[in-house]
Amino acid sequence: MTGRVLVTGASGFIGRPLVRSLVDGGWTVVAASRTRPEQDPGVADWIEIDLLAEDPRRLTAAARADVLVHIAWIATPGLYGHSLENLDWLRASAALSAAFLAQGGRRLVGAGTCLEYDRDAGAGSTGPRTIYAATKHACRLVFERQIAAIPGASLAWPRIFFLLGPGDHPDRFAPSLARQLVAGATAETSQGLVERDFIDVRDCARAIAALAGAEASGDFDVASGRGWRLRDLAEAIATAAGRPDLLRANPALDRPGEPPTLVGDPTALKRATGFAPIYSIDQSIADLLRHWETRRLNARNN
Amino acid sequence: MTGRVLVTGASGFIGRPLVRSLVDGGWTVVAASRTRPEQDPGVADWIEIDLLAEDPRRLTAAARADVLVHIAWIATPGLYGHSLENLDWLRASAALSAAFLAQGGRRLVGAGTCLEYDRDAGAGSTGPRTIYAATKHACRLVFERQIAAIPGASLAWPRIFFLLGPGDHPDRFAPSLARQLVAGATAETSQGLVERDFIDVRDCARAIAALAGAEASGDFDVASGRGWRLRDLAEAIATAAGRPDLLRANPALDRPGEPPTLVGDPTALKRATGFAPIYSIDQSIADLLRHWETRRLNARNN
Repeated sequence: MTGRVLVTGASGFIGRPLVRSLVDGGWTVVAASRTRPEQDPGVADWIEIDLLAEDPRRLTAAARADVLVHIAWIATPGLYGHSLENLDWLRASAALSAAFLAQGGRRLVGAGTCLEYDRDAGAGSTGPRTIYAATKHACRLVFERQIAAIPGASLAWPRIFFLLGPGDHPDRFAPSLARQLVAGATAETSQGLVERDFIDVRDCARAIAALAGAEASGDFDVASGRGWRLRDLAEAIATAAGRPDLLRANPALDRPGEPPTLVGDPTALKRATGFAPIYSIDQSIADLLRHWETRRLNARNN
Repeated sequence: MTGRVLVTGASGFIGRPLVRSLVDGGWTVVAASRTRPEQDPGVADWIEIDLLAEDPRRLTAAARADVLVHIAWIATPGLYGHSLENLDWLRASAALSAAFLAQGGRRLVGAGTCLEYDRDAGAGSTGPRTIYAATKHACRLVFERQIAAIPGASLAWPRIFFLLGPGDHPDRFAPSLARQLVAGATAETSQGLVERDFIDVRDCARAIAALAGAEASGDFDVASGRGWRLRDLAEAIATAAGRPDLLRANPALDRPGEPPTLVGDPTALKRATGFAPIYSIDQSIADLLRHWETRRLNARNN
């Protein structure tokens, strides 16, 4: 199905390709973010709103959407894991979803995280390890409870794994490597022994758009199903950049206590939507490097 | 150690015996709750405050406490698991602890829950299953982060298991049974096949008081370490009441999806504080029945 969809966080790393996927898929898109981007991606309306400060009913009343895809949340690298702003996003998200359902909306799509899982903790598992993951998980439980009270309402909760692709924050693992490598600078990384599941942000956007149009309720890993050791990903990026000589592993950058493995299972997503990724990891890496090379050249020419 | 301790939720089921334990242990107690009780249990001060509506700095400035024991939270049976008020308690708790630490407080004692554990979920564990448990868990992560920023600050996070004893909400499992049995009424229960760890609320209070005076940081199961099937506990209560004939198991009252076993491990608590329970389960049951018998007689005489 398609119809009217309201997307929060529409100007962000996931939001931008998500709006494109939804527009391409025939949705009438109402996009929301704190500031409107310069280029109009073909949305029906773009509403500027600060969800942490304003009444969400202004947004839901204007959008009159059938589906809410709620991406907005704090995501600043180095800060988001333990910021108290997560608590404000949890409260604001509960108010937004309540307003959306009260206005007549019937399908909620969230933005969960693989960090909600505590797969390695075994019998002593005590759940999410960061304020970010704990409040995201609480948000899912709130949404689940809200839709349970409304006949015909449904909730898809994508659990997003690790993203690759152009447009990410420059301080994250892959972009920061790419940025340094295209500049010919030595790129220091941790030993990179932990294993993570990476998926291209454009595939993530396609998956979430597919969930918006599906009917199934539940949790859906947005993941490739394949684990990469960070060191192997770093080497693949450095090799693609033609500069494997610039890579330095520094054990001092290892973060102890990180889960050794976070690999998703895309089966539920595929079953509910037929989704399959179209970007190979080589393609993601090539696009990432092209993005940073272009930025470097533009910076030099200005 | 002892000193000045601020107790929130001081008029509640745990708060009342906790204040008594702290006063008995030589602490200067500043108690806080929405309404002050009629009897003064010997506290230095009792401050009426609605933590969901008021600035907590009024409380922390007046208390000037070394230790904060934060018990206040929504706990109404049937409501607390999925109420959005949990989100407000999370935000209010973060503000309270920040105010306490800013005022010079150095030891935080929370009130976690065994429901934070998702022990039975195995490899697919996705953490707490209720909004209550998820926000309690988030609260612990917030407290942990806050004390990590302050040299000499510490956090004890008791994970409270299932409580028995006088003063509990009449709708909970054991009090509702006791209430019906002393009235000679048929007492319907679920089949009671799940196993839970019960501890007397006065022992729970003693354990939390001991943690207030200890120095260790970390999580501490407040539990007996022994599991009781609910049906066995129901039978023990009915036998102690002399009315095993009144007990009826009704499978329709079973709640599917409940974890089959929630049994704690009191080792960490014992190691950190030397704590050992003093109330046997027979004593807890006898006191519970006496409490409800007294209430029944008082009601009849009025």
